[in-house]
Amino acid sequence: MSEAPDFHMTPNEFRRHGYAMIDWIADYYERIESFPVLSQVNPGEIRASLPKNPPEEGEPFEAILADIDRLILPGITHWQSPDFFGFFPANASGPSILGDLLSSGLGVQGMLWATSPACTELETHVCDWIVDLLGLPDLFKSTGDGGGVIQDSASNATLCAVLAAREQATNYGFNEKGGDGKLVAYTSTQAHSSIEKAIKIAGLGTRRLRAVPVDDRFAMQPDVLEKWIKEDRAAGFTPCFVCATVGTTSSLAIDPVPEIGRICRQHNLWLHIDAAHAGTAALCPEFRFIHDGVDLADSYCFDPHKWMFTNFDCDCFFVRDRSILINTLSILPEYLRNEATASGAVIDYRDWQVPLGRRFRALKLWFVIRHFGVEGLRQYVRFHVTMTQQIVDWVKADARFELTAPPMLNLVCFRHIDGDKPTRQLMERLNAEGHIYLTHTKLNGRLTLRFCVGQVHTQEQHVIRAWKRILEMTDKLERGR
Amino acid sequence: MSEAPDFHMTPNEFRRHGYAMIDWIADYYERIESFPVLSQVNPGEIRASLPKNPPEEGEPFEAILADIDRLILPGITHWQSPDFFGFFPANASGPSILGDLLSSGLGVQGMLWATSPACTELETHVCDWIVDLLGLPDLFKSTGDGGGVIQDSASNATLCAVLAAREQATNYGFNEKGGDGKLVAYTSTQAHSSIEKAIKIAGLGTRRLRAVPVDDRFAMQPDVLEKWIKEDRAAGFTPCFVCATVGTTSSLAIDPVPEIGRICRQHNLWLHIDAAHAGTAALCPEFRFIHDGVDLADSYCFDPHKWMFTNFDCDCFFVRDRSILINTLSILPEYLRNEATASGAVIDYRDWQVPLGRRFRALKLWFVIRHFGVEGLRQYVRFHVTMTQQIVDWVKADARFELTAPPMLNLVCFRHIDGDKPTRQLMERLNAEGHIYLTHTKLNGRLTLRFCVGQVHTQEQHVIRAWKRILEMTDKLERGR
Repeated sequence: MSEAPDFHMTPNEFRRHGYAMIDWIADYYERIESFPVLSQVNPGEIRASLPKNPPEEGEPFEAILADIDRLILPGITHWQSPDFFGFFPANASGPSILGDLLSSGLGVQGMLWATSPACTELETHVCDWIVDLLGLPDLFKSTGDGGGVIQDSASNATLCAVLAAREQATNYGFNEKGGDGKLVAYTSTQAHSSIEKAIKIAGLGTRRLRAVPVDDRFAMQPDVLEKWIKEDRAAGFTPCFVCATVGTTSSLAIDPVPEIGRICRQHNLWLHIDAAHAGTAALCPEFRFIHDGVDLADSYCFDPHKWMFTNFDCDCFFVRDRSILINTLSILPEYLRNEATASGAVIDYRDWQVPLGRRFRALKLWFVIRHFGVEGLRQYVRFHVTMTQQIVDWVKADARFELTAPPMLNLVCFRHIDGDKPTRQLMERLNAEGHIYLTHTKLNGRLTLRFCVGQVHTQEQHVIRAWKRILEMTDKLERGR
Repeated sequence: MSEAPDFHMTPNEFRRHGYAMIDWIADYYERIESFPVLSQVNPGEIRASLPKNPPEEGEPFEAILADIDRLILPGITHWQSPDFFGFFPANASGPSILGDLLSSGLGVQGMLWATSPACTELETHVCDWIVDLLGLPDLFKSTGDGGGVIQDSASNATLCAVLAAREQATNYGFNEKGGDGKLVAYTSTQAHSSIEKAIKIAGLGTRRLRAVPVDDRFAMQPDVLEKWIKEDRAAGFTPCFVCATVGTTSSLAIDPVPEIGRICRQHNLWLHIDAAHAGTAALCPEFRFIHDGVDLADSYCFDPHKWMFTNFDCDCFFVRDRSILINTLSILPEYLRNEATASGAVIDYRDWQVPLGRRFRALKLWFVIRHFGVEGLRQYVRFHVTMTQQIVDWVKADARFELTAPPMLNLVCFRHIDGDKPTRQLMERLNAEGHIYLTHTKLNGRLTLRFCVGQVHTQEQHVIRAWKRILEMTDKLERGR
């Protein structure tokens, strides 16, 4: 017989290189403000610097580590910078990084309860915690008929919700027979692109997705929703799914969930709530108004990987009736059969999601909640909202700017009063300069800057400096005209 | 204004706690053989030991770390144990864990090229490397019309392949109109459950998934495939998709891809190759026969997170014509528009996958290839195959056992000649004892043990000892009868 090759890292080598990697990350956070927030490379530039062929022989870890600075860093847009105010945040944090490291180290598969019971049970437990933390209705807890699961993203949570709604509306016939073009889904014109993507993937057809108009606060008009549902039903269609958004991507608008929920209950539609970013705010009792009406929903999701300091990927997805989700997604081939599954006493999370395999993602969320404490998390939310209100005051105080949407939680939408061109110029020049990073959207057809305060490292000074830079650049552009 | 809260870890605290976590993992690998491979807890046992409520105030990291041993470890099935021979391996390795750690630390979103160019460009580059490493056809390289992307799992790669096939067959009409029940897909009776799941999700309907019978080597019968395609077409259906498996989950059977490919080309069907586990073997020229005919495929996937020592999640998915995939999955809302995307000069990987967000997964794969070197990886594959051949000889030499499938690469399927009952007893008793872990399948309706040698830490002694334990347990069970 032959000897095993010996190229893997020994535990002691892992220790040494692991310390070095930890140091690299700690150093990175110490110097993160020295980089332009938005990567300044041109297309193809990073790739051109990479070696054409992979090495035949292994390389020392030190060489790999040195290449991070040389080859990778120039191509990084620094999402963890305190000067990152674009999109929504994708927060990492110390405890989350280390929880994720533990998940990598344990390297378990959580597809079945039996393949690592702790992976399933900690996930169920922490999801039940989250129900209490966000003031969500108890019906989402695993101790009743509902339950929570960690998905990679709100996109996949929404897809699972669409699939469950699809099967419920067809008595589980879509899985077997495919669609007949009769199922109709509804969301608002301001909903995230992942809703349309889910409708495509699930085979409902985008012509059966109705984009309900919004009011002047960019929230869904429930009277139109109800009217359309009735019209569709009268026309022989089967309305089956509504996605309401709690905090739209463009402006954090909050759909009127109590009214939408009443309509869904009355007309028997699946109501999914997409609270991907805003959900975290409900940690604070004073912001729990965002969850009014959620007790009428069939499913709900939010992303701790946005504003709750837990590394991507971590979306918490809750359902009112887990049996519908499981009946929708369950397949049990022989090679996955086992005593625990057969007993019915356990959760097998593979039946709650699209893929079979799954990481131990609950660890990072557990680490974050324990490290910050619930009260600690609340203080960050409050701080970010307070900072945002400050920016709102600054915008209002400068006659060259106007708000383009009602400010909500930790997002300000504003623009230059002279229109799209100076607004775009301002954004592009600021991002090219690299001291801060902002992104845009369109509201009522008009270009709008989005300023989102939600990065865990952002302090007062960063917000003050950012606004100062916005003013300076505005002055500069005025002089240049 | 208010002060930022100060609960996050400072870089120096991260350094200290990070070292401790690295030490914990190194220690874990040093003592991993001291644990029963299969977790021995009962349903609910882990959860019952967790605190009922989350902490209001943050806890010291030391307390969190101590709970790993106390609360989590008893509920771990040790996939990284050298005595894990169940399912297929889900390998972690030192460089992979550290590459994943770096990904967590950088915390970037790779949804668009612009949101971190290095994340996209390294991924494209490493995927092109993989084409050469596995001897795949150049048509899968990004330098032509094709390209590779890292998905979380083969399940999602297959789903993307089904979606692309679905749109191609309907002139991108399924996305808009949904299905009409006419599209038909084919795979073998031995295909992975994720194929059926993808067909369900994509709304083709499982009654339009034909399970083609297999030959006595458990490989798809291409003549039946062709006959069925013709019959379906004659009956007014639209055959659109075939999934061929290179290395089935039950027995590593390899479908006759050259013949299946010819049929797909002739009848204009999308051919997807699921090489989730076996693909890694093609690192070695002597095993590249498994990829015969792959030049006729439209898409191909394999999982470095199985046998190539790269932490879950890491599936490499390749397409012959990336424009079909992109046209299938692309949605461009205003808030994601940017100059680089508009220029067409860059890849935006969000259009190659279901979710929008994405981690920097290429880092761990890059680290693995560089640490082991291609030749190092090959030596592991060869060692595992050699060990497997040894087990085959042992099975053949013991009259109480019989092979239930032709041995292939690093998997042996065997059973007790007295049938299902002693075979099941043997497995259950071995797994309950905890020294090794084996799983089962059914082949020709008969219970079969699967012995897969692919864990990076497995050495000769582990395989010898495992076989010794199998013999001892067989003796013991005989005496007990």
